[in-house]
Amino acid sequence: MNDWHNSGRPLILVTNDDGITAGGIRTLAEEMTAFGDVVMVAPDSPQSGMGHAVTIHEVLRLERHEPGIPGVVEAWQSNGTPVDCVKLAIHEVLHRKPDLLVSGINHGSNASINVIYSGTMSAAVEGAVEGIPSIGFSLLDFAWDADFSACRPVARTLARQVLEHGMPKGTCLNVNIPKIPAEAIAGIKVCRQSAGHWEDAFDKRQTPGGKTYFWMTGEFKNPDIGTDTDIWALEHGFVSVVPTQFDLTAHHAMSTLNEWNLKLD
Amino acid sequence: MNDWHNSGRPLILVTNDDGITAGGIRTLAEEMTAFGDVVMVAPDSPQSGMGHAVTIHEVLRLERHEPGIPGVVEAWQSNGTPVDCVKLAIHEVLHRKPDLLVSGINHGSNASINVIYSGTMSAAVEGAVEGIPSIGFSLLDFAWDADFSACRPVARTLARQVLEHGMPKGTCLNVNIPKIPAEAIAGIKVCRQSAGHWEDAFDKRQTPGGKTYFWMTGEFKNPDIGTDTDIWALEHGFVSVVPTQFDLTAHHAMSTLNEWNLKLD
Repeated sequence: MNDWHNSGRPLILVTNDDGITAGGIRTLAEEMTAFGDVVMVAPDSPQSGMGHAVTIHEVLRLERHEPGIPGVVEAWQSNGTPVDCVKLAIHEVLHRKPDLLVSGINHGSNASINVIYSGTMSAAVEGAVEGIPSIGFSLLDFAWDADFSACRPVARTLARQVLEHGMPKGTCLNVNIPKIPAEAIAGIKVCRQSAGHWEDAFDKRQTPGGKTYFWMTGEFKNPDIGTDTDIWALEHGFVSVVPTQFDLTAHHAMSTLNEWNLKLD
Repeated sequence: MNDWHNSGRPLILVTNDDGITAGGIRTLAEEMTAFGDVVMVAPDSPQSGMGHAVTIHEVLRLERHEPGIPGVVEAWQSNGTPVDCVKLAIHEVLHRKPDLLVSGINHGSNASINVIYSGTMSAAVEGAVEGIPSIGFSLLDFAWDADFSACRPVARTLARQVLEHGMPKGTCLNVNIPKIPAEAIAGIKVCRQSAGHWEDAFDKRQTPGGKTYFWMTGEFKNPDIGTDTDIWALEHGFVSVVPTQFDLTAHHAMSTLNEWNLKLD
């Protein structure tokens, strides 16, 4: 056991889906060192779009990584998904649940329907399932060399609030940050998930040998004109914060289903 | 375009996460032929635990498969995830949205928290995102040669109801079937998702060369004693039906968050 196991400071797990060398996770880990002992456990390669995938048919590896960030007490990389990283971190690295789990900062939006495809958010949702106060952060900039400076005060403010208050049972936070300078940010706004979706398309190509293959592409569409959504907030210069849950029950639909004829054939 | 594009019968997409040769999807496809033209588009290998993963960093392939089931008009296999299969089916096989999407029958439970890890249910959720009436079916039997006969009347009853009524906006059905004989089934019960979780563990091993690797294991725990849950229903001989949504907003938590100090540092 290392010294930090008994430091008395909050223990903070930092993970992501872009891989442990991404700019976003390094920014987030740096900011978290102000609040406690930071341990990074993240994928060894990009895992965007992995959703809530877990690795059950293949073996998982976990290797030490040199964080090179003062205050980060340990860093590990895994071949697993973001959800695998959270599970491995708890059971094989920390040997307890951390006081805070932060995931990201994702290179690209996880607002609206993107939350269900997102490895970044699945790590935070997995934290919530485990009863850990958890936050996923995303910046609306896909660039590898994106400027994360506007994210720093956002990460500090929300980490402080979550460490102080904990999270409402069964929830985590989905935080998205607009691609604007820090001084232009209008504030933090609590929102609902906008009812947007992707209009998918496939780019159909041929291998040199004549076999067909596809690349997934698509365009995000948001017909939801509510001013209480994450998309509205981001378009108006706010940081969006959506309390996000893993109970997928559509309670409002239960009475409708109970009117159906569910007698078995 | 094949004849079935203008048959006037409902068009039914059948997919799964266990792969196109699994017993569960074959049973489901057989039952669906009574209701319309059935097209199968499913993974070419098992994709359990893939959650809502999509393939964006690798190419997708789609190849014809010989269904060998009378009434199944086409079958295709893909190297993609279940969600990829749904997207490919709509855009590259059907060239329109089907009238019904059914996923499964999964070899194993997708009740309670399993819904968020499940490729079977992610295919159904993706259908709901696309506005397609969608149902995911699972049998509480992991065996490759599981007996799916009790699932047949369940699939028929629910497919008929969903084709007749459609689904409440933004929802799909998560249907789990207990591992008991058809005549022992107590009926179909509309439920909420039980608040269970996995207590994970890792089986730590060494390669012959001395490197450490892990297999994920774990035990499902359900502290939720409600009699309105899917777990309760299944333990009491009912088929559980949970209306399932992709809007993850925890509306009940919004007022709490609005009491926090969210002023930026």
